Formats: sequence, structure tokens, C-alpha cells
Amino acid sequence: MVQLYGDERIDFLLAKENMRIIQSPSVFAFSLDAVLLADFTYVPKTRGKILDLCTGNGVIPLFLSTRSSVPITGVEIQERLYDMALRSIELNDLGDQLEVIQGDLKEMPAYYGNRKFDLVTCNPPYFPTPQTDKQNLNEHVAIARHEIHCTLEEVIQSCSKLTKSGGKVSMVHRPERMVEIIELFRKYKLEPKRMRLVYPKEGKEANILLIEGVRDGKSGLKILPPLYALTQNDEYTKELREILYE
Amino acid sequence: MVQLYGDERIDFLLAKENMRIIQSPSVFAFSLDAVLLADFTYVPKTRGKILDLCTGNGVIPLFLSTRSSVPITGVEIQERLYDMALRSIELNDLGDQLEVIQGDLKEMPAYYGNRKFDLVTCNPPYFPTPQTDKQNLNEHVAIARHEIHCTLEEVIQSCSKLTKSGGKVSMVHRPERMVEIIELFRKYKLEPKRMRLVYPKEGKEANILLIEGVRDGKSGLKILPPLYALTQNDEYTKELREILYE
Repeated sequence: MVQLYGDERIDFLLAKENMRIIQSPSVFAFSLDAVLLADFTYVPKTRGKILDLCTGNGVIPLFLSTRSSVPITGVEIQERLYDMALRSIELNDLGDQLEVIQGDLKEMPAYYGNRKFDLVTCNPPYFPTPQTDKQNLNEHVAIARHEIHCTLEEVIQSCSKLTKSGGKVSMVHRPERMVEIIELFRKYKLEPKRMRLVYPKEGKEANILLIEGVRDGKSGLKILPPLYALTQNDEYTKELREILYE
Repeated sequence: MVQLYGDERIDFLLAKENMRIIQSPSVFAFSLDAVLLADFTYVPKTRGKILDLCTGNGVIPLFLSTRSSVPITGVEIQERLYDMALRSIELNDLGDQLEVIQGDLKEMPAYYGNRKFDLVTCNPPYFPTPQTDKQNLNEHVAIARHEIHCTLEEVIQSCSKLTKSGGKVSMVHRPERMVEIIELFRKYKLEPKRMRLVYPKEGKEANILLIEGVRDGKSGLKILPPLYALTQNDEYTKELREILYE
């Protein structure tokens, strides 16, 4: 049995796989966005290596381990979250496939060397750093949500450096920053090839952007069918239920 | 009664308004894309001026005249299509509000001067110019579909020059070129602010992109609810019927 600290609890991640994850309401709990990214992204199935930046409590590596047998490494800057990820890997007995390291994503290209991964995934902070008095008072949450330790440009630059030519980078973000993301992908030679937009329900504007680029890829974007999260009765749609509980 | 040439015919454009348009199966007939752009775009209602580049047989100015009382000018490079647009304006007795001029869109900024319009709309050719032997043999159709007389960059540059600061540019294009369009909008100081994706039916990839930029606007994109063209039974969806026949 793993050790739990403070208000940590063990949640089921995927009913079918009996996979569990350590979360904490006050420190970090994974979001729908991470689940959608894990569903959306391409994965190398049996050959290659995957890196997940801003891994938090390791939710994306845990999900991807059900779709791939290749080694998956998560990188997390916050010691408290890194430690949760470490214990979640142990809890699921996935130490042979998954590892997590504590570090700054900006230092990973120097640490690993350039062009080492077949896939880099990232669910980065969404919000530019505001004045200190407007930031979330909880430091853990603030670091996960705001560009305190890394800007969007630093994230995309690191993703690009770490990816092999022809390899893929998948990211989840907010649609209002799509223009900036596309410009930065192109600046760092990641050609946007697949995109999916998630809408809270019918008739509403998109609120989640999923985007995948190919390092040194040719131009030409495909936009996948839209995904609605909720029905008009505020229940999960059939498609979202399949992603969450398949 | 207006004169018709060759295989030209008069089609109803909007049942309710009794608006009609001259078309020719062999020369030019308007597409769903133009109808969707006319529905999607912002329009200044009572003050300002609208310009429609690549106007073809004038379908967009005719549509927009039902939503706005401001002067609307269409620009068409092909004399044969220009003449169809001229006669369609006459047919609908809209000469007080609409005009069409024959000319090259690249020359319009010099002709009108910079920053003269509150809205510029454009349904440009979608396809880069292929080898001559692969082009559509019909010259009229080839010019409307392929970047023979203007590249995407020239179109967007002209739109930008012609638009007032704070004015809008609305365009319809193919999603596979979204990355290029966003980069060119930004290059020419048109900030993408609204986007809508049209899907042929549920479960299919998007096939039409509607995008609106604001000259010198602040960043921040809204992605409107998706539009499906057809039901699973290949009938127009309720929403498309409302756009076509409202």
C-alpha cells in the first residue's frame, strides 16, 4: 500500500483497467483536458519513446500506458506533484514502463539531447501570469494554471527540440490562444496536422483545443469532428462517456 | 427584362425576398460557401461601406443587401462574370445600393486608397495553381478556383490595405489551409477574432472554414458552434435550411 499525505485520496482512473491515481483536492487533481489529450493524441504502439511535459500527478502517462507498450517519461517541476506521480506509478505497478522525473521542461533538451522522442505530449498552464494579487493563492494550483515557470513559447520550443524529425507533439489548450499556438508551432518547425475542438454543449463556443504537429512536417491541416462534452440535460454525451469509461 | 446569354438562367436566391440571380452552369454558379460567408460575416447595418472581392456573379453583395443598407461594391476580374453581376443587380433593382466593378483586386488599394472600408468580404480561389495540364479546361471556372490571377497572400494583403483600422475582413476557405491563412492574417495586421467550421455531416472532418479578422485588433479568438450541412440521411440540416431559406 502506498503512503498518502494530507487530503490525498486514491481515485479510479479507468474503471475497466482497474487503474488508480493519487489526487488531492487542495494540491492537484487531473482535469477533463488531460483525458481528452490522452484520447486525441497519436501514440507509437510498440517502438519509440514518449515524453509528457507538465505531467502533474502523471495522469497522461498512466492513460497512455493502456494504448502503448513503449517507455513513457513524465516531467514535473513541482516536487509535491512529482511525488504523487511517483506513488501512482508504484500503486499501479507500472514501474517497468513509466518513470517520472522532477525538473524544469526548459532544461530537458539539454538533459536528454535534441530529437530523442517519437511523441511529446503536454497539458501546459493556460493563462499568462497576472499581477501577483490576482493569482490563485494556492501556489501548487497557480503554477499548474499560470505561466509562472514557463511561457507558452518556452513550452513549444522545448517540445520541438525534444521531438525527432517526423515525430509528433500533441497539446491541449484554450481555443482563444489558437492563433498564438499555430504561430509558435510553425516558428519551431512543428507543422499543425490534426486539430479537434471540444464544445461544452450544442450551441456553445468551443472551450478546449486539441492540436497535434509533426516535426518538419508538410503543410495541410485536418480538423476532426467536433466533440460535445455535455448533452442539453447536462449529462456526459455518449462519446465523452466512451472516452472516459471505455 | 434583362438579357440572358448562352446557357445562362435566372435562379431564385432567397425565396422570401424574391431575389434572383443570373447563373450559368458552364461559366459560374454560386456555391454553398458564398451563402455561408454571407451568413457568417459581421455587417455594418446603416453606416460605412462594404467591399466584396472575387465577387463572381455578385452573390455575396446580393445576400448582404438583405442585412444592411450601406453601399456594397463587388470587384470581379472576369468580364463575363462582371457582366452577370451587373445584370443581376439590375434584375433586382438594387442599383442604388449595389455596384460592381471589373478589375484586379491587387489594384484596388491604389484605386480606392488605403483603409476605406468597414468590411471586406472574400470567397477567393482555394487551390494553388497546378501545372497547366491539370487545370480545369474551362477558363472561367479555373480562374475562380485556382490562384491564377491572385495568390492567397495577395488576396489577404489587399483585404488588409482596404480595411479601416477596427474594420473587419471575412473570408471563406478550406480548413487544410487554416494555418497559412492565420499566419497571413497576422502578417497583414488582421487579428483572427471569430471562426466557424462547417462539417459535411456528423463524424466527418471539417470541409469549410469561415474566418473573420479585425484590422489592428487585439488577440483572442472565438470559435463558434460547428455547423453540419447534411443529416445522416443526406438532407440539409435544420440550421442550414434556416440559412438558405430564412
